[in-house]
Amino acid sequence: MPLSPEQQAEIDAQRATPRQTLRAVSEGMERHLYLARPVLDHGFVRVIDYMGDDAAIVQAARVSYGAGTKHVSNDEGLIRYLMRHWHSTPFEMCEIKLHVKLPVFVARQWIRHRTANVNEYSARYSILDREFYLPAPDALAAQSTVNNQGRGAVLQGEEAARVLAMLKADAAQMYDHYQDMLSDEGQQGLARELARMNLPMNIYTQWYWKTDLHNLFHFLRLRADAHAQYEIRVYADAIAEAVADWVPLAWKAFSDYRVGGVALSAAAVDCLKRRLAGEAVTQASSGMSAREWREFEEVWG
Amino acid sequence: MPLSPEQQAEIDAQRATPRQTLRAVSEGMERHLYLARPVLDHGFVRVIDYMGDDAAIVQAARVSYGAGTKHVSNDEGLIRYLMRHWHSTPFEMCEIKLHVKLPVFVARQWIRHRTANVNEYSARYSILDREFYLPAPDALAAQSTVNNQGRGAVLQGEEAARVLAMLKADAAQMYDHYQDMLSDEGQQGLARELARMNLPMNIYTQWYWKTDLHNLFHFLRLRADAHAQYEIRVYADAIAEAVADWVPLAWKAFSDYRVGGVALSAAAVDCLKRRLAGEAVTQASSGMSAREWREFEEVWG
Amino acid sequence: MPLSPEQQAEIDAQRATPRQTLRAVSEGMERHLYLARPVLDHGFVRVIDYMGDDAAIVQAARVSYGAGTKHVSNDEGLIRYLMRHWHSTPFEMCEIKLHVKLPVFVARQWIRHRTANVNEYSARYSILDREFYLPAPDALAAQSTVNNQGRGAVLQGEEAARVLAMLKADAAQMYDHYQDMLSDEGQQGLARELARMNLPMNIYTQWYWKTDLHNLFHFLRLRADAHAQYEIRVYADAIAEAVADWVPLAWKAFSDYRVGGVALSAAAVDCLKRRLAGEAVTQASSGMSAREWREFEEVWG
Amino acid sequence: MPLSPEQQAEIDAQRATPRQTLRAVSEGMERHLYLARPVLDHGFVRVIDYMGDDAAIVQAARVSYGAGTKHVSNDEGLIRYLMRHWHSTPFEMCEIKLHVKLPVFVARQWIRHRTANVNEYSARYSILDREFYLPAPDALAAQSTVNNQGRGAVLQGEEAARVLAMLKADAAQMYDHYQDMLSDEGQQGLARELARMNLPMNIYTQWYWKTDLHNLFHFLRLRADAHAQYEIRVYADAIAEAVADWVPLAWKAFSDYRVGGVALSAAAVDCLKRRLAGEAVTQASSGMSAREWREFEEVWG
Repeated sequence: MPLSPEQQAEIDAQRATPRQTLRAVSEGMERHLYLARPVLDHGFVRVIDYMGDDAAIVQAARVSYGAGTKHVSNDEGLIRYLMRHWHSTPFEMCEIKLHVKLPVFVARQWIRHRTANVNEYSARYSILDREFYLPAPDALAAQSTVNNQGRGAVLQGEEAARVLAMLKADAAQMYDHYQDMLSDEGQQGLARELARMNLPMNIYTQWYWKTDLHNLFHFLRLRADAHAQYEIRVYADAIAEAVADWVPLAWKAFSDYRVGGVALSAAAVDCLKRRLAGEAVTQASSGMSAREWREFEEVWG
Repeated sequence: MPLSPEQQAEIDAQRATPRQTLRAVSEGMERHLYLARPVLDHGFVRVIDYMGDDAAIVQAARVSYGAGTKHVSNDEGLIRYLMRHWHSTPFEMCEIKLHVKLPVFVARQWIRHRTANVNEYSARYSILDREFYLPAPDALAAQSTVNNQGRGAVLQGEEAARVLAMLKADAAQMYDHYQDMLSDEGQQGLARELARMNLPMNIYTQWYWKTDLHNLFHFLRLRADAHAQYEIRVYADAIAEAVADWVPLAWKAFSDYRVGGVALSAAAVDCLKRRLAGEAVTQASSGMSAREWREFEEVWG
Repeated sequence: MPLSPEQQAEIDAQRATPRQTLRAVSEGMERHLYLARPVLDHGFVRVIDYMGDDAAIVQAARVSYGAGTKHVSNDEGLIRYLMRHWHSTPFEMCEIKLHVKLPVFVARQWIRHRTANVNEYSARYSILDREFYLPAPDALAAQSTVNNQGRGAVLQGEEAARVLAMLKADAAQMYDHYQDMLSDEGQQGLARELARMNLPMNIYTQWYWKTDLHNLFHFLRLRADAHAQYEIRVYADAIAEAVADWVPLAWKAFSDYRVGGVALSAAAVDCLKRRLAGEAVTQASSGMSAREWREFEEVWG
Repeated sequence: MPLSPEQQAEIDAQRATPRQTLRAVSEGMERHLYLARPVLDHGFVRVIDYMGDDAAIVQAARVSYGAGTKHVSNDEGLIRYLMRHWHSTPFEMCEIKLHVKLPVFVARQWIRHRTANVNEYSARYSILDREFYLPAPDALAAQSTVNNQGRGAVLQGEEAARVLAMLKADAAQMYDHYQDMLSDEGQQGLARELARMNLPMNIYTQWYWKTDLHNLFHFLRLRADAHAQYEIRVYADAIAEAVADWVPLAWKAFSDYRVGGVALSAAAVDCLKRRLAGEAVTQASSGMSAREWREFEEVWG
């Protein structure tokens, strides 16, 4: 359970006191504000703030004066056009700020998205909590035999039990030692900035993370993808649910053109045209490498 | 007068319909929303949206859970500490979106600040209005004789009149020709993306510009500075007034540590210490170049 | 002719003095260094410096120790894999620095690519040269009647002559006035930072522009595209020729996957699958808007 | 010892084969290329590539045509002027690429500098080596009692021995378990992307890291500072030695204006002026908080 009663009470209080504003308001997003959506065993994602809505995207694209009075149907067409033609700046006019609790090894992937603002809990300054990610049974998977950076079948029986016990015991031991080293009872006590290095990378950290919608879509395209590691994908999925309510038109365009879309190389375009003309193209006649052909067949049969 | 009656009516409508939100609200900033603050002869700045307030800076610095309940006095001390020690990420947690109407030659300076989101009026797609910046008499200045990139005394008498008349007539003529070339009456009509190149750089354009508070402070430090060109400085000054109401604690810290602050080189620190010890330091004994010494004396006498 | 004899002599001197280095060298790029490739009537692009080559991309992807000893065929496969799967960081390991002379209205489009380093000629500090872009006859085109931001047929006969004469005369007049206002003979002389605003946007400026290969590819994808304005496209084309010699494997992958590639939406994928299965899909049954369907048919018939 | 004989042989080979180039060459930097400078117990920093030199900074500032022929004394004055007045773009014209081997907890601080290009060794794809950072006796320090994020006296006697033994044994045990879980002998073998989470944060990783000189100076100002954690400071110090040889004029200006410089607030400027005028200013009369006054006295007595 990621939240303490005190934390839940604080969230309830934040949600109990609406205020007046003249800014654009996304009713869909207001329903998400402050609420902690649980992710993994101790993690969460919660929306702390946002700026803009679908209309802000349209407004920026039109650089018209004020909010405009166009019908929603037009707005949707414009947003789809912008997404289809890779226009990025109008989507940058929306901004989101999240509070995320996540394991360090997930944070290390996440931080690679550079166009974002981040403030992370500092283990130089403070002491980390005793909370570690331990995979649920169906997430405890073997190394993939076909993909160097993927996972295969779920671990079974005794091996699964042994791995899980090992992760659990090691985390407990490392945290005990972390506390031992920090303690100043009867000893000097190691500096926090040093003691933290003995902690394993499944310990939880937390941060505020703020980015614009264009860069968030880029994050979601990579991290909500089937090739992303499961432990970051579940965070991306949780964020996606809030985004779908925040900017429904942009979200739908993103789903159609990016998530469900396919990028074809010049060779792949040529192959499809030949197939449409009735030719039976093979890898040999396709001009593609074996690997690229395999990826092509996964989509087109 | 920068606003048409229609535009003013639209602003009035936007300000007449407050809505409820659970987000952080800056009462000081709400008073500025949508209002057009006139700048130069036809330009304006108006705040379209914002995210965060002083408390958001504190919250990010603490990465505590929720908004915290610290006293304002503590918040102020923390914000001053962050500013004094060049911490940037907490200030990035606040975001602002402006609608700006400005001459093209000012836009060309402004756009050099890269960490911002921009959507500009497109003269490929649309026709620009007949609005040009013509300096007020006290802004029509001669080239500085001591500073290669500054201005000196205000132009006087006949010269001032002649320059102003020339700017005015040229702008009118160029815009007439712009319209002539665009016209499709009795001719094909030149493409807009070509016709625009005949316009002078004092024509007005407009854009939505969005950035975070850290980068905005950097913009203000450079552009509200006495060495900045007057025509961009007045925009920075207009923005500064809104920022002072938006995040009063951060603004005060910025004023004390950046605007009113002074950066000393190692040599300058040494000189001041020797002066404090009673030594009469000269340029020769200072270790500074003539130019650096002159800059030093401007501050310290 | 964009270069003076003095400039040509300087380039010759720069090319006459090879030096020794232990860094990676791209023989293909060395042939381009310093040479000015003419663009438009007075502009040019020249490569001033570069860092890395195809092997640097591979090295970064492998994060192996040192340059590695893989065969070129493997390197090519890896580079194609990286491009196909939108990996960006290995391409960021190559860097290029250009010196570009270009009209101001082109510079205004170009500068929108924010992830680059720029130093531009300063008209606050210096006086611009009397050089303006005047379109060649086949570039003097009418406004497109089907595309709001495109151009149509080339202007004919008297209209073409009239437009060209107008552009020419206006540029000359504005530059004369620019000089008049600046002159300090018998008058104070207007500040350079003010006088420049009377110049039209087809005057030439110049800058050093430095970016990494990933962002350069993004620039080329947008600016060497058929929808880009002709006057920036010719710069992109000139840069592309140097890139093709600099990193031939990456360039080929970019050509296949980006330039010649096609992005399909989920609906478009569905349509193609139905067509491949023998169904005659119409716009009505496609789930696409009229505009999207038209764009689909342009590629697929 | 951070390098294996094979690695050393590879470096020797890289350094044995100079090639010809027409690019700017920094003789000082050529001496550093590829060489691994040891940092901590198993880490290193080595320069893999660079672009530009002091002259490139000057050239960009002048945006003159070609390299210019100014005397070094002028170049130095210009570079000092640029540094003193916070001009950043000319310094961005130089670029450096490093290969760094470093503990994960150091990498986590380092990566917060966002304006850089990074390719890190992937523990999803590959297996990490059995190498952990164990502090030398004089780096094994107690928590500071006055600074929440600093360290105090070195640990003594039995406590030091116990902490070091604990770090050593824990690292060994975690790595043994990492290997146990990965092994596919007689079991399925846990996915690498999961097994890595059991490793402590003092394990070594490595990456290629590329940035421009302006951002590198910013990194060095923060990380070579006395307040930075020792374990990242030693990397900054190692980089600084290469930079001093690469761009000696820029390095000297940076040392004088940033490293050895002091930033004064408006209140501090006022205090110094009053002191220079003979007044005995106290904290009470200074207008500064207790903390700010303490920081002021540390510099000015």
